Formats: sequence, structure tokens, C-alpha cells
Amino acid sequence: MDRLSELTTLLREFVHEREWEQFHDPKNLAMALASEAGELLAEYRWVRNEDADAWSRDPKNTGRVAAEAADVGIALLLLCDRLAIDPVEAIRAKIQVNRSNYPVGSSRGKAQRP
Amino acid sequence: MDRLSELTTLLREFVHEREWEQFHDPKNLAMALASEAGELLAEYRWVRNEDADAWSRDPKNTGRVAAEAADVGIALLLLCDRLAIDPVEAIRAKIQVNRSNYPVGSSRGKAQRP
Amino acid sequence: MDRLSELTTLLREFVHEREWEQFHDPKNLAMALASEAGELLAEYRWVRNEDADAWSRDPKNTGRVAAEAADVGIALLLLCDRLAIDPVEAIRAKIQVNRSNYPVGSSRGKAQRP
Amino acid sequence: MDRLSELTTLLREFVHEREWEQFHDPKNLAMALASEAGELLAEYRWVRNEDADAWSRDPKNTGRVAAEAADVGIALLLLCDRLAIDPVEAIRAKIQVNRSNYPVGSSRGKAQRP
Repeated sequence: MDRLSELTTLLREFVHEREWEQFHDPKNLAMALASEAGELLAEYRWVRNEDADAWSRDPKNTGRVAAEAADVGIALLLLCDRLAIDPVEAIRAKIQVNRSNYPVGSSRGKAQRP
Repeated sequence: MDRLSELTTLLREFVHEREWEQFHDPKNLAMALASEAGELLAEYRWVRNEDADAWSRDPKNTGRVAAEAADVGIALLLLCDRLAIDPVEAIRAKIQVNRSNYPVGSSRGKAQRP
Repeated sequence: MDRLSELTTLLREFVHEREWEQFHDPKNLAMALASEAGELLAEYRWVRNEDADAWSRDPKNTGRVAAEAADVGIALLLLCDRLAIDPVEAIRAKIQVNRSNYPVGSSRGKAQRP
Repeated sequence: MDRLSELTTLLREFVHEREWEQFHDPKNLAMALASEAGELLAEYRWVRNEDADAWSRDPKNTGRVAAEAADVGIALLLLCDRLAIDPVEAIRAKIQVNRSNYPVGSSRGKAQRP
């Protein structure tokens, strides 16, 4: 079993022990995911772009950022599990779509979609 | 190499070919992550809780939801890679924290933190 | 001077006294706005649709919800002020756009865009 | 009647004509608000802090940003109306709270809470 599937198993146990399946319909999980993403965002709101890497490596911040990123990951895995989506396959498929939406030639060095 | 590390390798190539590292400081990636989470959220905003599972399984919606979930996953992997965070380890550690924040006895069947 | 303009004046003073203009470029304010919207969202993530009105009127919750809504409003007013957007005019114009995007005949009782 | 109350009246009519009250419980409106904030955020995700003011004033971008800000404002007004919150009073009260949370002396020039 790969590492992601092990996590999903751990999360299922965590949820089941607390009888939380009743709260975890896809709508609520999408809300949980977005609110966790909002907490991660809050960390960076006053950090300038050019300081963001150094700020993140500061031991005062790094553990908090990792915990917020983990919360986003947990919500995403719970949602994918509820929806029977394999996150690795979904991401692989989306990278393919992105390859055609952002061709190397017209996208190089440009952040906006060509 | 596990499946997640393979994805990270794919994403690095995708970004590098387009010379997008310049845009991908942690602040910008946190913004990208939150805006992708917002798109996933938008899908569910008018769906009622009790309809959310069936709605998600409807072939008219399921591909779109998987693609939005994948976008969130891509942004999260890019951020973790930039920050040298192992997402699996971070999630495993956060589950441990959650175990002590939400003891089974006082959390069973209750959505709010005890 | 109308009530909204008075608020904007109050907010300018608040920001100026703290010398926070340096942090309030539109990018950072858009992040602040989204993270405040995420906090409001977090309040409702485990509340079911059919309970959401009663839950909001519960004195245990109503002050917290009003404060989160206010935080969103403050971020929005700061952003509009920085961008020299009159929020009332912008909203009035957007309602007009929405009227043509969602004609009464084809939109009645349907949440999705026709 | 002040300008904000006029907007709320306009929005009530807009919603009522389309029979959308059924979708507008506070949970769904909080989701709509956060997803609109996510769209505004998406506009700025690759813009650097130091370019964000000029970028916003560029006629190519300014109308889109105003429309996204308006969407956030509309969702906020609908939510406040549903919850019988006066947004101006709520914001005024929150500014008072912020005055004591961020005293001028210890907050001047610092983005983080003292």
C-alpha cells in the first residue's frame, strides 16, 4: 500500500472513531477545505513576495505553515475519499490538461493563460 | 519512488519548462491554493447537504469536481515542494495533534472542538 | 456624508495612525479579504442548511458571525478605497449585469446560470 | 433611505423575482461570499506586491477587479440582510474592538498583532 493510501486509512479510522461521517458530506468537506486554505493564506497576507521564502524558513513560522498545509491536505484527502476520487490519478489527468492549455512556447515566462 | 514523489517530479518539469519558478514564491502559491479551493467551493454553493453525495456522482458534475480537487492538490504539492515540506509526514504529524485535540470520548458525534 | 463614507474615513484614520498603508497594497488586501471570508465560512462548515438560520440567531453564535461579517466588510472597504472604487456604484453596476445574465424567465427557482 | 439600504432593497427584489430565497440560507451565502472572494484573489495571485497598484489601475484590469469586488459586496449584503445584521453598525463595532486589539503604540508599522 502506498503512503497516500495509508494516510487515507488513518483518516478513515480517525473519522470513524468520532462518528464524524455524518458531517462529512462533500459540501461540508469543500467548505472545510476552503476554510483551511484561508488559514494558510492568512499566514502570508502581510508577507511581501520577496520575503516569502525566507519568512517560511524561519523556525518561528515553519511549523505553523506546515500544520496549515497539512490541514488542507487532510480536507482534500477526506473529500477525495468521500467522492471515490484517486487524487494521484486526478492530478495526473489535470497536468495533462494543463499541458495543452499552457503550451510551452506561448506560456514561457508568462503567468497568464495565453 | 512513490506516487506522490512522481507527481512532484512531473510538476517540477511542468513548471521548469514554462519558467514559472519566478511566480511560485510561497505567498503566490498560497493564493493560488486558496483560489482553487474557492472554485471547488463554488461548485457546491447551491447544493444542499443531503443532495451533495448524489450530485457529486452525477456524470454531469463528477469530472468537473475531480478537476477542481486536482487543481487544489497541484497547488498544495507545489507549495510543499517550494517549502521542502513532505506532505505525507506533515499530515501524519497533524493527525497526531488532532488525536489529542479531539479525544474520542468527548468528540464522538460532535462537530465542534470539545 | 453617507454612512459608508463615514466608515471609510474611520478606517483611513485607523490605518494611518498605525502606519499600515505600507501593507495595504491591493494584493495583500485581496488576501486579507479572502482569509476573513474563510473565517466566516469556518463558522458554518458543520452546520446543516436547514439549521443555518436558527444556528445564526442563537445568541451563542450571532455576535461571532456579525464580527466575522464585519471583518470581511472592513477588508472590502479598504480595498475599494485603495482602488478608488465606489462600492455602491460597483454593486449597482453588477446588479445590472446580473439582470441580463440571469433573466427572470429562465432563472426562476433555478440556482444555476441558464 | 441611505445608499446601502437602497442596494439591499434592489437585491431583495432581484432575489425575489427569481425565487432564490430558497437557496440563500446563511450557510450557502457564506459559501457564495468565500467563492467570490476566491475569484478576486485569483486576479492578484501572480501580481507582485509592488506592481499591484499599477496593475489595478490598468484599464485592462480595472473593470474586472471592480466587478469581482462588487460580487463580494453583493454576497455580503445578502448575508447581512438574511441575518438582520446592519453591516455599518457591525463594522463600526468591529473597528472599536480592533482599536483595543491593536493599540497605536505597539502596532505602529507592524502588521502582526502585538
